[in-house]
Amino acid sequence: MGLEVLIVGSGSALPTISANQTSQVITCGNQSFLVDCGEGTQVQLRKNKVKIQNINHVFISHLHGDHFFGLVGLLSTMHLLGRRADLQIHGPKGLDEIVEIQFRNAGNNLYFNMLFNTVEKPGLILYEDNKVIIKSIPLKHRIPCFGFHFQEKKGLRKLDGHKLVQHDIPIYARKSIAEGLDFRNDEGLVIKNSELTFDPVSPTSYAFCSDTAYSEKLIPFIKNVDLLYHEATFLESERDRAKKTFHSTAKDAASIALQANAGKLILGHFSNRYKNKDGFLQESRPVFKNTFVAQEGEVFKI
Amino acid sequence: MGLEVLIVGSGSALPTISANQTSQVITCGNQSFLVDCGEGTQVQLRKNKVKIQNINHVFISHLHGDHFFGLVGLLSTMHLLGRRADLQIHGPKGLDEIVEIQFRNAGNNLYFNMLFNTVEKPGLILYEDNKVIIKSIPLKHRIPCFGFHFQEKKGLRKLDGHKLVQHDIPIYARKSIAEGLDFRNDEGLVIKNSELTFDPVSPTSYAFCSDTAYSEKLIPFIKNVDLLYHEATFLESERDRAKKTFHSTAKDAASIALQANAGKLILGHFSNRYKNKDGFLQESRPVFKNTFVAQEGEVFKI
Repeated sequence: MGLEVLIVGSGSALPTISANQTSQVITCGNQSFLVDCGEGTQVQLRKNKVKIQNINHVFISHLHGDHFFGLVGLLSTMHLLGRRADLQIHGPKGLDEIVEIQFRNAGNNLYFNMLFNTVEKPGLILYEDNKVIIKSIPLKHRIPCFGFHFQEKKGLRKLDGHKLVQHDIPIYARKSIAEGLDFRNDEGLVIKNSELTFDPVSPTSYAFCSDTAYSEKLIPFIKNVDLLYHEATFLESERDRAKKTFHSTAKDAASIALQANAGKLILGHFSNRYKNKDGFLQESRPVFKNTFVAQEGEVFKI
Repeated sequence: MGLEVLIVGSGSALPTISANQTSQVITCGNQSFLVDCGEGTQVQLRKNKVKIQNINHVFISHLHGDHFFGLVGLLSTMHLLGRRADLQIHGPKGLDEIVEIQFRNAGNNLYFNMLFNTVEKPGLILYEDNKVIIKSIPLKHRIPCFGFHFQEKKGLRKLDGHKLVQHDIPIYARKSIAEGLDFRNDEGLVIKNSELTFDPVSPTSYAFCSDTAYSEKLIPFIKNVDLLYHEATFLESERDRAKKTFHSTAKDAASIALQANAGKLILGHFSNRYKNKDGFLQESRPVFKNTFVAQEGEVFKI
């Protein structure tokens, strides 16, 4: 099936006409997960034709405004458009209070339940269904901050239609064969599963690492990830500023991708001092060749 | 001198790609006042080339999100761009708590002081300098809500250069003549002020009436205003919905403009069910001819 990552916003603290604040939509089958939600995200979601009522889980990495100032507006719009389904909001301690105080003052009783799940530790399972499992990643920032790791689960084996006919396999047995079991017929003859099925598509994985200083602590949590998004707010010329503000350079991100044995790296959260993003690729690719720059509206299929 | 009104956003609760939430910039000389601040306002201010650090007073009409969800992001940007000057924020009870909780969680100590002024009564003087006086207007909405009335003060009289020479008026006397006093020379001869000066430009006035049901109570507070902005969320076909939600129709707004003897009426806060705004003019103009529709980016000079 594969995960898909839509870049909704790729800018950093100062939103401009051409750079929106951090937000991404991760799609897995018919589930859409929203990750971070800077100011103006709801309009960008509209622009990218994302169905907001299909989002049932929102993940907020930390409480710097460029990662959540758009959340309360999005919730308000979900309410006005008649949402009834529960919405789970995974984020740092304090987010529930910030959201609730605003609705309380507006005199609004939301039509739907907001269920807050406080993320306080790395490696926590935040969400799991039969297709995907989502865990927290430790990041190193000025305030508590977590990334999110999406791991697809292994899908069912693909049935080989010709072989099913050839061996006269009854319909009732197909489910267990897809699940990987061998088939035993009425005469006790065993037909090996590998004879009847193809391997399923390999499950894919994605890691979202917003706002972090260079930190090798996160590597075990993203080892062998297929696609890694890692912030790169600055270039090497601003290394001191990166250190002071607990942000990364493009080279830092590349080094993490290399050590984690990632398949592909996307850089984002660019300081708006950089009008042209070529420098990020120039500094990252010598360390980690398969690097790309987050472009708003772009979809990365894994 | 005259007041100028920039329409930053003219939409209502649901922001879209083409309709931003309520916000206006009122300019009086070199002072800029921000009135309401829906989500995304800071980017619209950028788009309209408004210098945000020139804004020293923000007025928030009420605590429905489409009128203030952009405030905390704007404050954050003012901080990041190095603001040091105090910022006065006039708005409803509760706004200070909402703003402060967000900066507290972000671990940010702002470089500038936010001074909150709670607006709890109509007719209050919220701001006054030698050019303008700003007062609260009572509105009728689901939660406490106030409009804002901007009244320019009478400027200095214009000196008639020829007459000053002719009567040999010394320089030291000019200030008091501009202020309207007669001149008495060393021989005791009085020269009437009207002989030496022209009338100043008439002071102008503007009233901002966001979110309100039809309410005659506000008329005394906006009597003879030169330019009136009055919300018109709906057309007559949605009168029941207007009543239920404490909003106005175009006809309601026109009736208020007529009774207040306003010079000109701007309608705004349109429900996004109306793609075309012609209906608003068709329903307002038979009652109050001098009606216009708020267009984002438009400047009304009074």
